[in-house]
Amino acid sequence: MGRVTVRRQVLRISGGTARVRPDALAAEEPLEQRVNGRALAVTMRTPGSDVELAHGFLLTEGVIAHREDVAIARYCDGVDDQGRNTYNVLDIALADGVAPPETGVERNFYTTSSCGVCGKAALDAVRLRTRHSPADDALRISADTLSALPPALRAAQRVFDSTGGLHAAGLFTADGTLLAVREDVGRHNAVDKVIGWALLADRVPLSGCVLMVSGRASFELVQKAAMAGIPLLAAVSAPSSLAVDLADEQGMTLVGFLRGDSMNVYTGRERVIVDSAESPAQPVNATHGTPAAAPVALSPATPSSR
Amino acid sequence: MGRVTVRRQVLRISGGTARVRPDALAAEEPLEQRVNGRALAVTMRTPGSDVELAHGFLLTEGVIAHREDVAIARYCDGVDDQGRNTYNVLDIALADGVAPPETGVERNFYTTSSCGVCGKAALDAVRLRTRHSPADDALRISADTLSALPPALRAAQRVFDSTGGLHAAGLFTADGTLLAVREDVGRHNAVDKVIGWALLADRVPLSGCVLMVSGRASFELVQKAAMAGIPLLAAVSAPSSLAVDLADEQGMTLVGFLRGDSMNVYTGRERVIVDSAESPAQPVNATHGTPAAAPVALSPATPSSR
Repeated sequence: MGRVTVRRQVLRISGGTARVRPDALAAEEPLEQRVNGRALAVTMRTPGSDVELAHGFLLTEGVIAHREDVAIARYCDGVDDQGRNTYNVLDIALADGVAPPETGVERNFYTTSSCGVCGKAALDAVRLRTRHSPADDALRISADTLSALPPALRAAQRVFDSTGGLHAAGLFTADGTLLAVREDVGRHNAVDKVIGWALLADRVPLSGCVLMVSGRASFELVQKAAMAGIPLLAAVSAPSSLAVDLADEQGMTLVGFLRGDSMNVYTGRERVIVDSAESPAQPVNATHGTPAAAPVALSPATPSSR
Repeated sequence: MGRVTVRRQVLRISGGTARVRPDALAAEEPLEQRVNGRALAVTMRTPGSDVELAHGFLLTEGVIAHREDVAIARYCDGVDDQGRNTYNVLDIALADGVAPPETGVERNFYTTSSCGVCGKAALDAVRLRTRHSPADDALRISADTLSALPPALRAAQRVFDSTGGLHAAGLFTADGTLLAVREDVGRHNAVDKVIGWALLADRVPLSGCVLMVSGRASFELVQKAAMAGIPLLAAVSAPSSLAVDLADEQGMTLVGFLRGDSMNVYTGRERVIVDSAESPAQPVNATHGTPAAAPVALSPATPSSR
């Protein structure tokens, strides 16, 4: 399925000069997932690692919990108008005793709560479905190790530098070792692919592991991490309010704006170790009119407490 | 609904120093859209401009074509566990004679084509549903005007600088005048909101207008622009392969990597005017092993041809 990038001619304009040149684009195509013969979802994704994508999707949506819950996953009879297999339809047969989803996954998700459509209902729905809560995970990781993850993720991305168009998700151990990286035009797909890889490698729940994403952290990504039992989600960019609420509720550590030696720890800060030996914690003047904030007392190799 | 941002305490780590300080987060909550009493979709979105969001969503999914197609749009009886209205359920009544969607919008979309699940089927489905094709739109815009759009969009964003977490979509005229800007944690929602604004202002089809987005250009965003009759979509970041294919098929101009005085014009390049008076087009050596590209002959104020 070597269709991760596609080449096209483009008019490049720069400083008033224009020329035609070839350009590499991130590939995007629909994938239909059929479960026990019935269409469950159509997702726009970058082709490749589709079996992992399906496993990760079914796990993070609460349909399966173990790799043995899937009996068969294979491309089926989707053909284009010239009769060629599109490799865009994946047929999944669940193992005996695994209940197929009743309805569209999305609707199922929100009707599990009785209190209406709101943030709390969304949190409740995740709590009712998680089988691998990360709340008690003993992971501890240094801020220095966290700072090394974004460059490690970028180095592992084969495609990003040529197209600039793919999101990445990487799984790391607490010492910063990269376990797996996957890319996609959709950031939720990149996360599903890397979690599906872990499920197929029999590594779920992902205790002691860190999930690093190249973009923002939404509710949906925290939900996926929680369903896979991941105790720490780190993002290059900002989290949303509901992402922070869900991470807090699930006992997950959420790190955002992870850039250079800086980061924001939104929840679960006891897991992040700040070595302040060289640069002791000092009060910094608030510059944006925010209330004066107290410095956190930190000694070397001691987790901050909350 | 002043809930666009939410304040939370965060542990800020920088250069080995850690301190607790308040931080502004982009708000994210579920919105359920009910059409004629039946749940159509649940979307995670930033609260605000929800009526515009619903109008834009229904237009770009092909359910409605004019503002008169919606008889009523109002928040309904969604309450939280303390009985307060969540403002997260929007009840939409279509006007007499407007057919409600038969099934989930997504599935409807992909079953309009007979040739299987593939990129071509996705293009076919859009072609069958567009009522405002931008193919013959006479828009012409200079590269200089395009270069002024990203800073204008950022200046108009009230929230981005405080949270770093919101996507923006802006509508501009050919002379660079900003018509409307909307923000959201989801980039498709930001586009739906700004298109919904235009529908309610009776400005659809958006002939002669430019849609500018702060992130990447996916198939879905080109689809939405096509459904609203927008002849030019410009993005700060990369487009996907299927986004380029759809723009080409729809006769839309697609501009990506719009940064500073540089940009890539992927399709419909006749609409972009390059003034090469000060900096005449010259061949530039290819630096990435790509085949030598011919310079484009351009005279001042003359559209490039293809």
